[in-house]
Amino acid sequence: MTPMPDDKRNGGAAVKTHRTEYRVIYGDTDNMGVAYHANYLRWFEIGRAELFRSLGMTYKSIEEKGYFLPVSEVYCKFVDSARYDDLIVIETSVDSSLRAGIKFNYRILRKKDETELVRGFTKHAYVDRSGRVIRPPRFITDILKQNRFL
Amino acid sequence: MTPMPDDKRNGGAAVKTHRTEYRVIYGDTDNMGVAYHANYLRWFEIGRAELFRSLGMTYKSIEEKGYFLPVSEVYCKFVDSARYDDLIVIETSVDSSLRAGIKFNYRILRKKDETELVRGFTKHAYVDRSGRVIRPPRFITDILKQNRFL
Amino acid sequence: MTPMPDDKRNGGAAVKTHRTEYRVIYGDTDNMGVAYHANYLRWFEIGRAELFRSLGMTYKSIEEKGYFLPVSEVYCKFVDSARYDDLIVIETSVDSSLRAGIKFNYRILRKKDETELVRGFTKHAYVDRSGRVIRPPRFITDILKQNRFL
Amino acid sequence: MTPMPDDKRNGGAAVKTHRTEYRVIYGDTDNMGVAYHANYLRWFEIGRAELFRSLGMTYKSIEEKGYFLPVSEVYCKFVDSARYDDLIVIETSVDSSLRAGIKFNYRILRKKDETELVRGFTKHAYVDRSGRVIRPPRFITDILKQNRFL
Repeated sequence: MTPMPDDKRNGGAAVKTHRTEYRVIYGDTDNMGVAYHANYLRWFEIGRAELFRSLGMTYKSIEEKGYFLPVSEVYCKFVDSARYDDLIVIETSVDSSLRAGIKFNYRILRKKDETELVRGFTKHAYVDRSGRVIRPPRFITDILKQNRFL
Repeated sequence: MTPMPDDKRNGGAAVKTHRTEYRVIYGDTDNMGVAYHANYLRWFEIGRAELFRSLGMTYKSIEEKGYFLPVSEVYCKFVDSARYDDLIVIETSVDSSLRAGIKFNYRILRKKDETELVRGFTKHAYVDRSGRVIRPPRFITDILKQNRFL
Repeated sequence: MTPMPDDKRNGGAAVKTHRTEYRVIYGDTDNMGVAYHANYLRWFEIGRAELFRSLGMTYKSIEEKGYFLPVSEVYCKFVDSARYDDLIVIETSVDSSLRAGIKFNYRILRKKDETELVRGFTKHAYVDRSGRVIRPPRFITDILKQNRFL
Repeated sequence: MTPMPDDKRNGGAAVKTHRTEYRVIYGDTDNMGVAYHANYLRWFEIGRAELFRSLGMTYKSIEEKGYFLPVSEVYCKFVDSARYDDLIVIETSVDSSLRAGIKFNYRILRKKDETELVRGFTKHAYVDRSGRVIRPPRFITDILKQNRFL
């Protein structure tokens, strides 16, 4: 976590990044010998779930409180390919530019040489049990701020 | 559907087989250039779902009536490989030897040359909404018998 | 296919759309009772593969000629949810705004009521067997133009 | 690893078991709120890959030497269900009863209470680059024996 003064999204403040790892299995690869592109969305999910867990607030516990964060948008740029048995690093940060829901930014790297494989984001609405869109629950925003993810 | 006198499972009576098709996509393949083996379980699911649909009784409608058929056992023998863009045939029949739940037998063939790729079965318990195991619901058994799948 | 005079992408000309269908299986759904969002990328793949097939030129045959179209970017906007056993329509068109590779636009609809579920695009580079980026092969561009997809 | 005198498969000798963990993600779950059954085959793959890695011999390195272990048979018995965010334990051992190829036995447990969720096995042929079935390579058998997995 380093200050990124030219990063306008967070007003010049630090953008904190969570890192977690995943090992690419055979079932993730395809005919071209690389990880099938749809799997990166699964790895983005791991990234944000582990970011929440690192705050002592699992996404599961958020759902149990009656809040859901369905994906409303996803974007991926594929720069290089993960291959079978690669250990990849999933970097996840919260993008403070989105007010209505929550947006996560991701980078996926090959661990051994820190090569960037994929960049992307997901946007999520906050919805209640009935599926209605709600404001960001205070307890989530607070814990993200306390831990400087927001 | 032909009489199979040496098939003891159904007491010498005809074993009716449902056929449906699926096209193998890139996302189904793996590093070895063939369909990843776990996908055959998805294709077994397509086989039994389409068998039910052909009887005018979707699995979805069975669930809506409060009956669920979770998979309790699965077996697959991999004989040959499905490859990218292969059109495969999923053959599904009901195995009358199982009394307590329902058992489906499957064969998956490459359509263009009818080569057998996989043989297998799944066993399912009948459970109600509370997850308790129940007897086979009469309306399911009846419709399977009327259509000579049982 | 209707004229879309306000569609600047194709200079006011018709944008031809290919339609194909897919049935959502249990294995596509998740804990929220809807199709897991990563699966839409698989369905985009079905869309562009079937568009090519409808032109008498399978993506497989393109690869056999030594050309590959790895996904370089993907975007999805999730508007509504596909559910178990829904028959969905995958609408695919070619976006002529991209010169260097090929871009496909997609809409996924629930068939029974034509509700839009997802909108998105994928961008692809053309690469040769050695992985080098190449110009769009003439035979692909020609066949897309002849069939008014470009 | 404890002696299992009543285990005839290994002649009364110890059966060594490798343990590794996996966290169930949303993308693994289905409409019934549990892990979709086909995913257990992916987790079996993780089990045997990590068993090999623990011996200092990755499955990837085996392939690089020109040996491949395609799955020829798989069996699963589903006893209980993994749910979203469950940490599961994958127990893998080598079944010495198979001479021609290699057979792995698996148990998948929910970590928090050690409840058994699934039991199963996979059988694999050893094949060379040309796809021909070969005898078990000596270096694999040796390393398995040295580490008392065989």
